[in-house]
Amino acid sequence: MSKLPKVGTTIFSVMSALAAQHKAINLSQGFPDFDCDELLKRLVNDAMEEGHNQYAPMPGIMPLREVIAQKIESLYGQQVNPDTEITITPGGTYAIFTAIATCIGPGDEVIIFEPAYDSYIPNVLVNGGVPVLIPLSFPDYSIDWNLVRSKITPRTKMIMINTPHNPTASIISREDLEELQKIVTAHNLLVLSDEVYEHLIYDGQEHLSILRYSELLRNSFVTFSFGKVFHNTGWKMGYCIAPAHLMSEYRKVHQYLCFSVNTPMQYGLSRYLQTPEHYLSLPGFYQQKRDYFLELMKDTRFTPLYSKGSYFQLMRYDRISDEGDKDFATRITKELGVASIPVSAFYENGKDDHVVRFCFAKKKETLEQAAERLRKI
Amino acid sequence: MSKLPKVGTTIFSVMSALAAQHKAINLSQGFPDFDCDELLKRLVNDAMEEGHNQYAPMPGIMPLREVIAQKIESLYGQQVNPDTEITITPGGTYAIFTAIATCIGPGDEVIIFEPAYDSYIPNVLVNGGVPVLIPLSFPDYSIDWNLVRSKITPRTKMIMINTPHNPTASIISREDLEELQKIVTAHNLLVLSDEVYEHLIYDGQEHLSILRYSELLRNSFVTFSFGKVFHNTGWKMGYCIAPAHLMSEYRKVHQYLCFSVNTPMQYGLSRYLQTPEHYLSLPGFYQQKRDYFLELMKDTRFTPLYSKGSYFQLMRYDRISDEGDKDFATRITKELGVASIPVSAFYENGKDDHVVRFCFAKKKETLEQAAERLRKI
Ligand SMILES: CSCCC(=O)C(=O)O
Ligand SMILES: CSCCC(=O)C(=O)O
Repeated sequence: MSKLPKVGTTIFSVMSALAAQHKAINLSQGFPDFDCDELLKRLVNDAMEEGHNQYAPMPGIMPLREVIAQKIESLYGQQVNPDTEITITPGGTYAIFTAIATCIGPGDEVIIFEPAYDSYIPNVLVNGGVPVLIPLSFPDYSIDWNLVRSKITPRTKMIMINTPHNPTASIISREDLEELQKIVTAHNLLVLSDEVYEHLIYDGQEHLSILRYSELLRNSFVTFSFGKVFHNTGWKMGYCIAPAHLMSEYRKVHQYLCFSVNTPMQYGLSRYLQTPEHYLSLPGFYQQKRDYFLELMKDTRFTPLYSKGSYFQLMRYDRISDEGDKDFATRITKELGVASIPVSAFYENGKDDHVVRFCFAKKKETLEQAAERLRKI
Repeated sequence: MSKLPKVGTTIFSVMSALAAQHKAINLSQGFPDFDCDELLKRLVNDAMEEGHNQYAPMPGIMPLREVIAQKIESLYGQQVNPDTEITITPGGTYAIFTAIATCIGPGDEVIIFEPAYDSYIPNVLVNGGVPVLIPLSFPDYSIDWNLVRSKITPRTKMIMINTPHNPTASIISREDLEELQKIVTAHNLLVLSDEVYEHLIYDGQEHLSILRYSELLRNSFVTFSFGKVFHNTGWKMGYCIAPAHLMSEYRKVHQYLCFSVNTPMQYGLSRYLQTPEHYLSLPGFYQQKRDYFLELMKDTRFTPLYSKGSYFQLMRYDRISDEGDKDFATRITKELGVASIPVSAFYENGKDDHVVRFCFAKKKETLEQAAERLRKI
């Protein structure tokens, strides 16, 4: 009677558990090993002390929705209506699931690029949909739009994109978005754009959020995470932006799925976001970590695939034998004491390009220690 | 393209908004107007300060699962395995949705008793299931098991129960559970038992949790809420108990729906639950409120339907005309300044017994003021 007969434990839980078991440095699951800002914690505590401990309004507290709208206007030049177009969610993963549950029913096809964040396919399956999997080109992880066109059918309902992209750390280009726009218009499709790594983008690039493009936005759900950017993945706070006609359907599902989201954390975040520096400083903060990690890894036998965004760095490894990336990741966890994620875990068919993913959202010392260990290979 | 064409805004949001608009005393939506325990807030703050701000394990932190297992053993004499049979959720509503999403697919029938908490029917519909609605007898809100038997078909998959019951404040009896057991066994059904008002049970009655009955539990999901019992509905924390073979499927959905739940709040709750007095004191605490509210309402024209559990009190009102309960609830919000919930909102067909629901999880002064105003009718 399983709806998800093929699903096992997520690779994130598997590798984190293996890391714990072998006391390895955990560069697998994407979370920081440093704490979030003391100020942010204090603001949440203040909200609890002020008695903000009962239900928030179903779409989220207005001060948080308003400050998000201000941020979007200043960063992306887009006006979104906090009343009808923003909903606060318990995390980015939930925000994505709810968009799929809102729109996808039995037989509806959803285009998903692989490697794909591991919730996408099960989210479609639980709702009776059909994932249509399209591999990104290797090794640059670009989108082959002719391949996309060839996969469109009358049942195609939605295209999922993700920028900055997890696990590949690639970002979408202006040309990609033009192609996307053409296809969406021609076939009347929906877009689900997972932008949880919004501020983690490097080398002076701009984040090409769907929010910049009014025409695309008209058919889109765009999902965000506070945990990923403010170093508190355990708070499970995020949000979804969509035009009012889509958001009204989204909220019908959300209001009966969890109704509302943690009130004191919403107040804390709404006050923290009043200071734009708190997110404007993020690209620099994480680029420094990426650059330092790349520097440290220079004299190892790993070859980086350039990371343009997110807090992940893909690395090719020298193959001694035909060892697959899963075995390799397991071996270096056990033998060298560094946990990573094998990228084949993000392909339904297990496609193996002999690449592993390291999370560099770690303290300087952690990155140094990890590189020190990885140098031994 | 709506999956829920008939869904509007929940009656809770509607009545709370109306209450705010007319500065009415809000006895509609079920939440306390007093704050949760200072100690509990401090424990959450401690956890944030200790740096518990990254992902919790997918099923929840072990200390919280362990203390829940201890509570269940001491209250209900049941051993549940914290490793495989308990999952922490962002609230009771989410816990219910996830059980339905786990088991219900297109065409599966789910028996729901009416009046029903307003998420049940949309939860079944979003998953393609078919709600089979059975009215509770009026005015005692008991279950007619012959009627239940007559509604069983080969497509029946699940029976939902709710005890203490929202909105009627009735509780399930031992005889009910015997009937349920017979039907579940005969037709191989699943049970979803919503027990979010677990500790709110009066007059020395025992809470007849499904957890007491090993045979029933084998086919059951049982859902709980911390917010409802610890006066912090805005924290959105709850959990689900199920036997390992069902829980493993539940977790497949949960791990891709929101993956994990607020970490510092889990730590805070796990420490708070170490002191059984924190929940053992709840029946007395709320019974006093119920009794006081009933006393205050004695000299009004409302007739109480006895409240055996939950923090709700149903009241019949004297009809001057054929005024329906929705119009009545709206009118007394506007004219007398007291908001309630019309019970017809919990019937798909709007069945109207001229009853409204008051929430008595309020300060003494609030209840006094409300009764003072209601006396004017
Ligand atoms: C939800 S656990 C996985 C965290 C994450 O986003 C990642 O490691 O890719
Ligand atoms: C989730 S808002 C509704 C609160 C509640 O449980 C009720 O009022 O019945």
